[in-house]
Amino acid sequence: MHIDELGAEQVATALSQLQQQYEALRQNNLSLDLTRGKPGPEQLALSDALDGILEGDYRAADGTDTRNYGGLEGLPEARALFGSILGAPAEETLIGGNASLTLMNNIIDLALNEGLRGPDTAWGNSDDVKFLCPAPGYDRHFAICEHLGIEMITVPMLDTGPDMDIVEALVSEDSSIRGMWCVPRFANPTGCVYSDATVERIAGLGKLAAAHFLVLWDNAYAVHTLYEDAPPLASIREACLRQGTLDCVFQLGSTSKITFAGAGVSFAASSPDNIAALSRHLSFRTIGPDKVNQLRHVRFLQSLDNLQVHMAAHADIIRPKFEAVLATLERELAGTGMGTWLAPRGGYFIAFDTRPGLAREVVRLASDIGVKLTPAGATFPYGDDPNDCNIRLAPTFPSQADVEATAEAFVICVKLASLRQKAAA
Amino acid sequence: MHIDELGAEQVATALSQLQQQYEALRQNNLSLDLTRGKPGPEQLALSDALDGILEGDYRAADGTDTRNYGGLEGLPEARALFGSILGAPAEETLIGGNASLTLMNNIIDLALNEGLRGPDTAWGNSDDVKFLCPAPGYDRHFAICEHLGIEMITVPMLDTGPDMDIVEALVSEDSSIRGMWCVPRFANPTGCVYSDATVERIAGLGKLAAAHFLVLWDNAYAVHTLYEDAPPLASIREACLRQGTLDCVFQLGSTSKITFAGAGVSFAASSPDNIAALSRHLSFRTIGPDKVNQLRHVRFLQSLDNLQVHMAAHADIIRPKFEAVLATLERELAGTGMGTWLAPRGGYFIAFDTRPGLAREVVRLASDIGVKLTPAGATFPYGDDPNDCNIRLAPTFPSQADVEATAEAFVICVKLASLRQKAAA
Repeated sequence: MHIDELGAEQVATALSQLQQQYEALRQNNLSLDLTRGKPGPEQLALSDALDGILEGDYRAADGTDTRNYGGLEGLPEARALFGSILGAPAEETLIGGNASLTLMNNIIDLALNEGLRGPDTAWGNSDDVKFLCPAPGYDRHFAICEHLGIEMITVPMLDTGPDMDIVEALVSEDSSIRGMWCVPRFANPTGCVYSDATVERIAGLGKLAAAHFLVLWDNAYAVHTLYEDAPPLASIREACLRQGTLDCVFQLGSTSKITFAGAGVSFAASSPDNIAALSRHLSFRTIGPDKVNQLRHVRFLQSLDNLQVHMAAHADIIRPKFEAVLATLERELAGTGMGTWLAPRGGYFIAFDTRPGLAREVVRLASDIGVKLTPAGATFPYGDDPNDCNIRLAPTFPSQADVEATAEAFVICVKLASLRQKAAA
Repeated sequence: MHIDELGAEQVATALSQLQQQYEALRQNNLSLDLTRGKPGPEQLALSDALDGILEGDYRAADGTDTRNYGGLEGLPEARALFGSILGAPAEETLIGGNASLTLMNNIIDLALNEGLRGPDTAWGNSDDVKFLCPAPGYDRHFAICEHLGIEMITVPMLDTGPDMDIVEALVSEDSSIRGMWCVPRFANPTGCVYSDATVERIAGLGKLAAAHFLVLWDNAYAVHTLYEDAPPLASIREACLRQGTLDCVFQLGSTSKITFAGAGVSFAASSPDNIAALSRHLSFRTIGPDKVNQLRHVRFLQSLDNLQVHMAAHADIIRPKFEAVLATLERELAGTGMGTWLAPRGGYFIAFDTRPGLAREVVRLASDIGVKLTPAGATFPYGDDPNDCNIRLAPTFPSQADVEATAEAFVICVKLASLRQKAAA
């Protein structure tokens, strides 16, 4: 029954039952954690062959001794393979260290403090530097901006990606807007895939925006499908080539959720001039990336086709976890008006929206009975969810049983908070 | 015979012979390279067991799954082992990625732009920020300063380390001096080991200098001895503890010249407050370092004792290369007044001083016959060797035969340049 149709007595009865269920859960001394998008041990084991795969042969295809210094842009075969994930050629791809977050930080540091095309082009020459932040989004993106003093402007997320009418209006009007964050496929946390039209319009922002505008195209879930029929993502590079804006987009990715989280390789693709500028920037920070680990990854993953097979094995492990959460939400909350959610076709998250003003309360209720959820607000710039409704659920890391137990506890917390709110109204 | 004692005719005769020898070398179409301090393939092979050493067991001693995210400061066993190289306890040690250069850059970025103890303490709040640069020194240290707009003040190197009378006078007088670079054991490139008195005086700089002064103690060659009787380095940490200045020193190191160059691990040690500040700084840049590679290194190197055995194997490979260069210098140049050099007891370099004004010319002469040397001036801030005399020889990477051929060609270039200078005088 829909919450709006419940009478006072029905609410009171339901609350009484829920309170009992909630107290019963407390007795279980749960210790559940759905906070972060981490692969589970079974997923990690899919890549256990990485260590030892070189069998003593540390030479790259071109004879490079990967055990020695050098090669800032990465091994040719790594640039080719990981470029192909982003739809970019090897020569437009640079391989970084174990974290794409480090590359993102370096790219923004370069554009902000040094200038993509020399000191005169540094964003920091202006008093104000702003970024568009489609939200809900990824908290670590927002943390980079906040840390570097870049003002964040929240932009609504639609099922098709960022609301492009708003985005285009903003960048046309305000020349202090220098960039935008995007997670274009299986967005963190909504799971949406940017539509073809959105991709085309984002590629066109460089023509509307201030000089040296940058889209940070964090394609963290480029190949992370849960179902074979998951919607594809249009090529931002091809759209940029059509519109002459390749300088305005840095694509990013990593193998953190393909092989080992934090022990894989990261990669960036952009125009040749941007890659050269990034490479020079990095030359003051490192003598080169870990080429041995690049070689391991190329030998292990081999090709884009083989990588898809590997990702299907990941999907087989985590799909039941997603389906368990979604089945519980559907069974317990569909038609109740107590929340909305999307069923993602890939990625690492399920984004749940409570009734306005309840996200913090639901997270608190869950925490009090041993169920850790991502802090409410974390998916918004400055941790400020204006409607206090978004909660990010990350079902990949816990065991299947724990995911199921968490989902059951979660819906009780949602119902309890919703009905208490109604009772108090 | 000493060059000062040669008459005009002797000079002419010698020049004629040298010119012939030089032209003969040109006919050999040499392709030799003594430019960078890279380990040779035989050295790298000492660590080939690294890949595969985990044998499927990716768990750290405390049960941490190294394949997953987290652990900004590094694995406990890695902090303990690599801390011991620097003489620091595990809790004062942080493990970074594959390059200590990245840690150095992060430390300076933190102190310059964010402040070691919050924004009010950032060096960048002052108009001028200067660093003391003992020279000859390491070009990549100087490049970091130049890149970040930090003014460099050259300080002379003595056999005991930096000239501390000058250093102490400068930091006492000029509060815009915020730090100093040091390579304290087997200094790059002179090979000197800082004396106990110098270490103690450097530890005391924090009491003379401006607030939040930092010594970057790049102990890159901490365990890189060529001989068993190589002079030890006094503990900067103990000296700092005696003087209450642990906040003023960041020790740094890496396994780049222990295992694989560019595919090893880096580490930093400092006061607990500094390590906490660095860790927070890194939290915006990475979700954590590559713990799998840390675990590989701990399993492979095991202990400080075992590491010393491993380093002795390195020494057995490169000692003959150093000795070949030194023997040629001794045989051909001792007593001639055409150059001075030290015989290092460890490290990666031999620093050679020509007569004033000849380093560029010697490097050019060598280059013209296919012998690449480190560019003259590279060992000084801004590439400016005031006497144009220092040349850094790096004999580790080429084969024994190539090192010997290079040394022979080098001394001919030195003699040719020296006698031409005398003839023109």
